[in-house]
Amino acid sequence: MRLLVIGGVAAGLSAAARARRIAPSLEIVVLEKGADISYGACGLPYFIEGRVPRPEQLIVHTPEYFRKERNITVRTGARVTSISHARREAVLEGGEHVRYDRLVIATGARPRATEFEGPTVFTLHTLEDAGRLKTFLRDRQPKRALVVGAGYIGLEAADALRRNGLAVTVVERSPHVLSRADAELTAAVRERMERFRVELRLNAPATDARGSDLVIVAAGLQPNVELAAEAGIELGRTGAIRVDQHMETSLAGIYSAGDCAEALHLVTERPAYVPLGTTANKMGRVAGANAAGRRERFGGIVGTAIVNIFGLGVAITGLSLEQARREGFSPVAVRITAPSRAGYFGGKPLTVELLADKGTRRLLGATLWGEDGVEGRVNVIATALYNRMRVEDLEQLDLAYAPPFATVWDPVLIAAQQLSKMV
Amino acid sequence: MRLLVIGGVAAGLSAAARARRIAPSLEIVVLEKGADISYGACGLPYFIEGRVPRPEQLIVHTPEYFRKERNITVRTGARVTSISHARREAVLEGGEHVRYDRLVIATGARPRATEFEGPTVFTLHTLEDAGRLKTFLRDRQPKRALVVGAGYIGLEAADALRRNGLAVTVVERSPHVLSRADAELTAAVRERMERFRVELRLNAPATDARGSDLVIVAAGLQPNVELAAEAGIELGRTGAIRVDQHMETSLAGIYSAGDCAEALHLVTERPAYVPLGTTANKMGRVAGANAAGRRERFGGIVGTAIVNIFGLGVAITGLSLEQARREGFSPVAVRITAPSRAGYFGGKPLTVELLADKGTRRLLGATLWGEDGVEGRVNVIATALYNRMRVEDLEQLDLAYAPPFATVWDPVLIAAQQLSKMV
Repeated sequence: MRLLVIGGVAAGLSAAARARRIAPSLEIVVLEKGADISYGACGLPYFIEGRVPRPEQLIVHTPEYFRKERNITVRTGARVTSISHARREAVLEGGEHVRYDRLVIATGARPRATEFEGPTVFTLHTLEDAGRLKTFLRDRQPKRALVVGAGYIGLEAADALRRNGLAVTVVERSPHVLSRADAELTAAVRERMERFRVELRLNAPATDARGSDLVIVAAGLQPNVELAAEAGIELGRTGAIRVDQHMETSLAGIYSAGDCAEALHLVTERPAYVPLGTTANKMGRVAGANAAGRRERFGGIVGTAIVNIFGLGVAITGLSLEQARREGFSPVAVRITAPSRAGYFGGKPLTVELLADKGTRRLLGATLWGEDGVEGRVNVIATALYNRMRVEDLEQLDLAYAPPFATVWDPVLIAAQQLSKMV
Repeated sequence: MRLLVIGGVAAGLSAAARARRIAPSLEIVVLEKGADISYGACGLPYFIEGRVPRPEQLIVHTPEYFRKERNITVRTGARVTSISHARREAVLEGGEHVRYDRLVIATGARPRATEFEGPTVFTLHTLEDAGRLKTFLRDRQPKRALVVGAGYIGLEAADALRRNGLAVTVVERSPHVLSRADAELTAAVRERMERFRVELRLNAPATDARGSDLVIVAAGLQPNVELAAEAGIELGRTGAIRVDQHMETSLAGIYSAGDCAEALHLVTERPAYVPLGTTANKMGRVAGANAAGRRERFGGIVGTAIVNIFGLGVAITGLSLEQARREGFSPVAVRITAPSRAGYFGGKPLTVELLADKGTRRLLGATLWGEDGVEGRVNVIATALYNRMRVEDLEQLDLAYAPPFATVWDPVLIAAQQLSKMV
């Protein structure tokens, strides 16, 4: 009995490791098309920044580790070109056929292409990408960079390059940052970037890169679904691979997880495409468990994400006002700013925007920013969303208080109190 | 129509302020027996430490503010000696009768008495207490202090005195700190105290204070219920005032909130006595709303608390193993230690002990400690407890991840994964 996993980063290796725990005698083979496996892609901007000195520090485990410690075969440079589910086999570049009984497709995503290309155009998606950029920075000592896209990666890349002394301009096609239609959030991020002398150009159409020594393309991710689609696996309306709650695709015995797959959004109750490392790992575990014979369920996502932009933490969870309207809710929003902890323990202003549905009083989402305490608060709201809490229940939460950690009325509770009067 | 509130600190003033918002024409009178109102009692240790230079910094609002801005009469030095609900009046020391239509009893608590008394014995409960201790420290320059009790206040007081250069010994009657029967927690706290050369003596019976220049009595709190009891109001089995979910006592029209009252514990589903500032404020708001004619409900508590001991954050929520057994659960516990965030962003080891019930898989409680990130994680678990989550759902939470804030597997998720295998 062989489990084949296509993809050796977050979801693929989570699936393989989980399957091994459950089925000690299962043969497990992981095929990774790239040179590296098991790396923390979210750490790449910090390797560029220099905070992480060596790229190996971002590698969690080696193929050798998986072979010795987990009895899992991991092959790098192994690109699958087609899958024949009728024959239960994958075909590799070079013609080799690899048989399977169960298959997990964890082919990930790739940076969305733009009009920019050439030797001074970079992406920041793989360890190889980062190595290439790092070498360029060292050898060519560029002075000016253009970052295309004001999503997480774009803003993190801008931060990393600026801290290396480059002049940085970020261009974004939409009128807002972080794919969140929120004028105040965009203003807060812009203010922070300007304080560090990074230029942000919104509503910026196809821009030329004249005057820039390098271009970072960070215009979003596109799921790698071609292999699956050609094998006859259904895609969802988001364009990513459609899976059920067991991570099984439309072909029985083939599972999918990670940045190539959709996930159930618990607020909209519809599939969404939110490619993130944490979700990839969770989905991978469920795919691996079920491929190994269990019957586990992935609980779904609420769209939580966080980013640090020059010391400003920005976090989102659930829906924005615009998304909520589009999904048919009647959202009411409140925005408050309150200290993250006692002033005499270094508390900083924390802004919390909270949304609930007017009819049902159900919590729909939140956007938070501040220099301190953002991660703890967004996680409380993410937990509340997972539990479909109503705003008057959020207001009642028994959160921890002592002056070194919080204020007697936590910002989340203050926002909930205000919102409670309005829904 | 007059609302009378007895007690002018957290619960009493939250009740008064909330009632005012709801009923603009209600007459509201607050009677406070002490000299000060509206102060953050949780900040007192930091005034002793010197981090808060002036006691006024702990005062949120003055009687003048309440009069001018809220049209609420606040009288200090006004001690109520009896309540006659039949006549709807309170009698003050000195004989004055104050009539009411609705009454909120927010008489708070007092430090539990010990065998220690005299001019060098202090408590740290009111602003006056703190002022007296501060004066003593300044005028007498003591060298050695004995702290009686290893609860929150005792440990915070020990920290504050040690940072002022005193030699400090903490004595505690029970075999553990923070009223939590947990040997590893106690060991972690002891290790931290010893690193700062504070002696911790557990299982210590009535100790004499020879060799100490001062004694801080911090042996727990006792609810101030005498006034209520003498008025015929029922007390609960905890000894505090019994209230329903509307904060109404056994006498219709009399509400109670704060450190004198019980609260429904959502894990045990029984009334508990957990006197804390955040809970006092929440209860006070509900009491005030209902006294003003609304019909609101206090959601209950899950027993969340947090304390900083020489830079070690210690937090609890829900039940300990011992409490869970006593309440008839079949608790299973797991304890993990994992980084609070990426090492290259200053992550520190965070220990999470998580408990769930073997039969129902329901989450029961957690104990956490570490130098970083404790508050955010305990709040996630507190939110989970409020929602009666099961351990396999906790494992699925969509928590925020980026290296500056967390690790790809949050410590809470790691603990939940481990526990999920055991329940």
